[in-house]
Amino acid sequence: MGQYKIIFQPSGRRCQINDNETLLETMQHHGIDLLSPCGGAGVCGKCKVRIEPVDSDNIKYMNPLTQNEKKALSLYEIRENFRLACNTKICADVKVFIPVQSTISKQVILKNGLNHAVAIKPAVKIYSISMPKPTLTDHRADISRLCDELLKAYPELIKLEFEFSLLTGDLSTILRKNKWQVDVVIKNESKIIDVLPVGENDIYGIAIDLGTTTIVGKLCDLKTGKLLAQSSSMNSQVRYGDDVISRISYQMQHKNGLKELQQIVVNDMNVLIENLCSTAGIDKKHIYEIVLAGNVVMEHLILGINPEYIGKTPFVATITQSIEVLAEKIGIKIAKYGYLYFLAAEAGFVGADNVAVLIAEEPHKKNEISLTIDIGTNGEIDFGNNEKMFSTSCATGPALEGAQLSCGMRAAPGAIEAIDIDDNYNPKIKIIGQNDDESIKATGICGSGIIDGIAALLKSGLLKKDGSFNRKISSDRLRKRENNSMEYVIVFGKEQNSSEDIVISQKDVRAVQLAKAALYTGIRILMKKSDCAAFDKVILAGAFGSYINKTSALYIGLLPFCDEKIIQTVGNAAGEGARMALMNIDKRREAEKIASDINFVEAADESDFQEEFFAALNFPNSGA
Amino acid sequence: MGQYKIIFQPSGRRCQINDNETLLETMQHHGIDLLSPCGGAGVCGKCKVRIEPVDSDNIKYMNPLTQNEKKALSLYEIRENFRLACNTKICADVKVFIPVQSTISKQVILKNGLNHAVAIKPAVKIYSISMPKPTLTDHRADISRLCDELLKAYPELIKLEFEFSLLTGDLSTILRKNKWQVDVVIKNESKIIDVLPVGENDIYGIAIDLGTTTIVGKLCDLKTGKLLAQSSSMNSQVRYGDDVISRISYQMQHKNGLKELQQIVVNDMNVLIENLCSTAGIDKKHIYEIVLAGNVVMEHLILGINPEYIGKTPFVATITQSIEVLAEKIGIKIAKYGYLYFLAAEAGFVGADNVAVLIAEEPHKKNEISLTIDIGTNGEIDFGNNEKMFSTSCATGPALEGAQLSCGMRAAPGAIEAIDIDDNYNPKIKIIGQNDDESIKATGICGSGIIDGIAALLKSGLLKKDGSFNRKISSDRLRKRENNSMEYVIVFGKEQNSSEDIVISQKDVRAVQLAKAALYTGIRILMKKSDCAAFDKVILAGAFGSYINKTSALYIGLLPFCDEKIIQTVGNAAGEGARMALMNIDKRREAEKIASDINFVEAADESDFQEEFFAALNFPNSGA
Repeated sequence: MGQYKIIFQPSGRRCQINDNETLLETMQHHGIDLLSPCGGAGVCGKCKVRIEPVDSDNIKYMNPLTQNEKKALSLYEIRENFRLACNTKICADVKVFIPVQSTISKQVILKNGLNHAVAIKPAVKIYSISMPKPTLTDHRADISRLCDELLKAYPELIKLEFEFSLLTGDLSTILRKNKWQVDVVIKNESKIIDVLPVGENDIYGIAIDLGTTTIVGKLCDLKTGKLLAQSSSMNSQVRYGDDVISRISYQMQHKNGLKELQQIVVNDMNVLIENLCSTAGIDKKHIYEIVLAGNVVMEHLILGINPEYIGKTPFVATITQSIEVLAEKIGIKIAKYGYLYFLAAEAGFVGADNVAVLIAEEPHKKNEISLTIDIGTNGEIDFGNNEKMFSTSCATGPALEGAQLSCGMRAAPGAIEAIDIDDNYNPKIKIIGQNDDESIKATGICGSGIIDGIAALLKSGLLKKDGSFNRKISSDRLRKRENNSMEYVIVFGKEQNSSEDIVISQKDVRAVQLAKAALYTGIRILMKKSDCAAFDKVILAGAFGSYINKTSALYIGLLPFCDEKIIQTVGNAAGEGARMALMNIDKRREAEKIASDINFVEAADESDFQEEFFAALNFPNSGA
Repeated sequence: MGQYKIIFQPSGRRCQINDNETLLETMQHHGIDLLSPCGGAGVCGKCKVRIEPVDSDNIKYMNPLTQNEKKALSLYEIRENFRLACNTKICADVKVFIPVQSTISKQVILKNGLNHAVAIKPAVKIYSISMPKPTLTDHRADISRLCDELLKAYPELIKLEFEFSLLTGDLSTILRKNKWQVDVVIKNESKIIDVLPVGENDIYGIAIDLGTTTIVGKLCDLKTGKLLAQSSSMNSQVRYGDDVISRISYQMQHKNGLKELQQIVVNDMNVLIENLCSTAGIDKKHIYEIVLAGNVVMEHLILGINPEYIGKTPFVATITQSIEVLAEKIGIKIAKYGYLYFLAAEAGFVGADNVAVLIAEEPHKKNEISLTIDIGTNGEIDFGNNEKMFSTSCATGPALEGAQLSCGMRAAPGAIEAIDIDDNYNPKIKIIGQNDDESIKATGICGSGIIDGIAALLKSGLLKKDGSFNRKISSDRLRKRENNSMEYVIVFGKEQNSSEDIVISQKDVRAVQLAKAALYTGIRILMKKSDCAAFDKVILAGAFGSYINKTSALYIGLLPFCDEKIIQTVGNAAGEGARMALMNIDKRREAEKIASDINFVEAADESDFQEEFFAALNFPNSGA
């Protein structure tokens, strides 16, 4: 087995590569970020890098181009030695240049949900106790004395268990050192998880929205409910693919893949926790609980449970009920006996994150009929009111997040987030980050940008209702590609001194059509199931929902036609639901109840799915 | 820091010693057995070794004699370079000769208790289940499906929990591989601890009597109750002292002492488990539970809990209630999710071993009034019937086990176990092991031997009721020592070609007087407490009780006078109680109940203790 040296540019980082692994794999193992939305399957064409041999006379330093690469790379790129890292193996010392487009930039993350009032009733509380000292006639064992006296002093405690490690952590010395006066940390009014010197002891908790792409954390004071700090980070698992399916594939194809993916996100969590603590100026050893909401695959991966069967029909998870695990057990660093609590989920693709949205927004408690939509790589839809609730998930695919489009990208600086087209068929665009830094160039189109762009193309007549470009229109921006397919140029490379044009291609339009048809069909099927022809309210949760232009969304038929005013964007409602569950255990019971009561509909399994889906493919409006 | 080489003789083993540790410490760390009943405190004088420099010209190879050694060693021994290992530091390469008297020989261990019938109702059982496969309309998560179907099929199961690691151990793949037909191992009708392919799955359990000196294990089939194997071993902690107080001191004086003592006994347990499995021809991965009885200090040490406060007034344990711990957590190797269950104890010095004796013999269920005695280093006494039970512990000290007497030893080959004295004041003795091997010499006196010997001395008139030797008698065996104190020679060294005489000294007699007075006083106080002037039955549990000569015991007043016929020896009743609790969970509840119901009396705290104790010091009978 040969081993070669790589120098990465522009970072200057170095590492070794074996000739039996791909460049992408090596970069993943060394934590060198590179876009790879498809997880190395060779289909997304995003993991482009340029390669040069260290010895410039060397002509045999990597494997020949693959078919996938010939499809994904332009002639210019091929000439300039661009490769897809996932298709490249190295057989000599090389330099690898990572273009800006291929790097993972920090996404604009939505930390805030609407703040809801919640009664303070956390799982973890402090009970102060003063005990009589042992004597020759009162020689109860220390743990019996502690439990007896707590039960006497606090009638709400019925029966007490304790963490075994408390005993080996020398409970007896703690009690004597503190002269039999201690503060006892108890979870769920039943389990002793810490014993502290009596005094001003603080107890904290964190609510986390564990997303496929981003992680958002909120640090709260469990005594007052006060939000002390918020922070967010990327989920570093994106290195292994943008969507949950790529992550599942990765862990199936690699011997220690599950462990690897788990450790990566555990590490992210630990960094996030450190950040939250330093912002709030507290010590992480006072954090006794973390409440998590996330999709079922993320839940499995962070807990180290094989997610394989969630990805295969009939899409069954190992666990969906709520679960508590000692944080230490999976490497999360908080209080020694602190716990993770994962909210209940419904089914394979409708996870605890959707349940968290529901307990935050409470559509199931209201008379009015709500349509709740959380669009990410997967779309989750809930429909109903206090009488009945239905839910489904739909494979919108990553197009609505800006991924896997020819010029798609996540909502990060450089992304075009809004597009208008004037009467001369010329675009007016808005670029994320340009307000703060005028030198930022457009590097791609994000989710809200593509919705806006397609709406603008439809209005201008450049795009027809069936989704094909109107070839009758003459504009230098509407052009034919080599394969005779059409595309509209939003930004010519020359306009901003870059080598690449930013376009919306026919394929991009088709991807959006499929996504919006999937979403629309899901909504229609739930409406039919619940025998409702209308709804009173639309709740748009998540980042995508927050940045979307409602007018454009309605124009392209992403949602059933309705008054824009009834559409409410609620931001990171999943994170808000997790916070509420952290502060109030009744919310956890509510999550369990709604997870079990809601009627999950497997939309693709419904008899009228095909028909509805085809009907939904066309756009409802066009100026053409 | 200097480091020197040691060669041990006769074994030939070698090790390194640092000049800052004692020879005993080095030997303990290297697992080289040496008697040290006092745990290295320098007072028992048992850890004698002879030392020679490797370079015979070297005159500075160890520290000078200490005061303790000058007291403990004879002039002959001092001349021959004998030392106490606990008082010796080495500063050159040496050879260390370990005399037979200083080695820890395998004790005669009592494995059997009387076998009692017990209904089969173990904590761990197997439940076979066949589940419907998941479909698009029945997409319950795997763990929910498993629990739901078990609850449907087995009405005795009310609610099910599961071991978290079952999920990470890939429950989902196990279910699919076995086509949704599995055998589920469930503990206490409530917790899933394993999932196995459906078929002839065996489940086993072990009952262990964890003594200060010995460990006895019984392997049982949890389905049939059949006893498959029995085995026993020394508790290797004896290296650190014979009694619990020396062990407590050791862990207090050494930084990692607790961890060290824990690992030693955990290792003993693992060896014992391997032996049991190989005898029965089974795999230890099928052992799902170990039920333990032992004194409270042993319980703390094996669980890794600081026992410090059990050794100090008011003698309070960290835990006395029954406790379950995942075996893996403390390094015991059985089934991955197998548990240890420690039976409930009463108080600091009345442990789960005494409770185990009670649930085996059930004096608390009978009309007749029983006196139950378990004599070890500590004596435990229970008195009463189905109306009321009292218990106490008494510091008999190690004399009754043959330890800390001038020629005392444990009941191992070479120990004198029976003594008679003829009219000419000459002894007739019985030596353990001599039936099997005639060449075995007497090396000391064990517990039953000393009782017998003192009874014989009393009958012959050599000893008076007040415990002093009768100086009027003339016999070459009754002689005066240098300090003017008397001793009786049982075996002259010359009689068996050894260098040392075996004697019963005045000090030895005093030690037995103190021990028997402590026991007698304990019994008297319990009889007074319960307002009973008599009892119907005496239950003698444990090894000491089994080998003791009842006539001698009554003669010297170890027990209140009674008809010999009502004295029943029940052998290792603690082990038997543990076996019954392993096979029937009702016995565990019974143990908890008796542990909490029994009236523990701190004898030394009673107002008439002193008076009773002094009255009990004299012997009741003597031919003098």
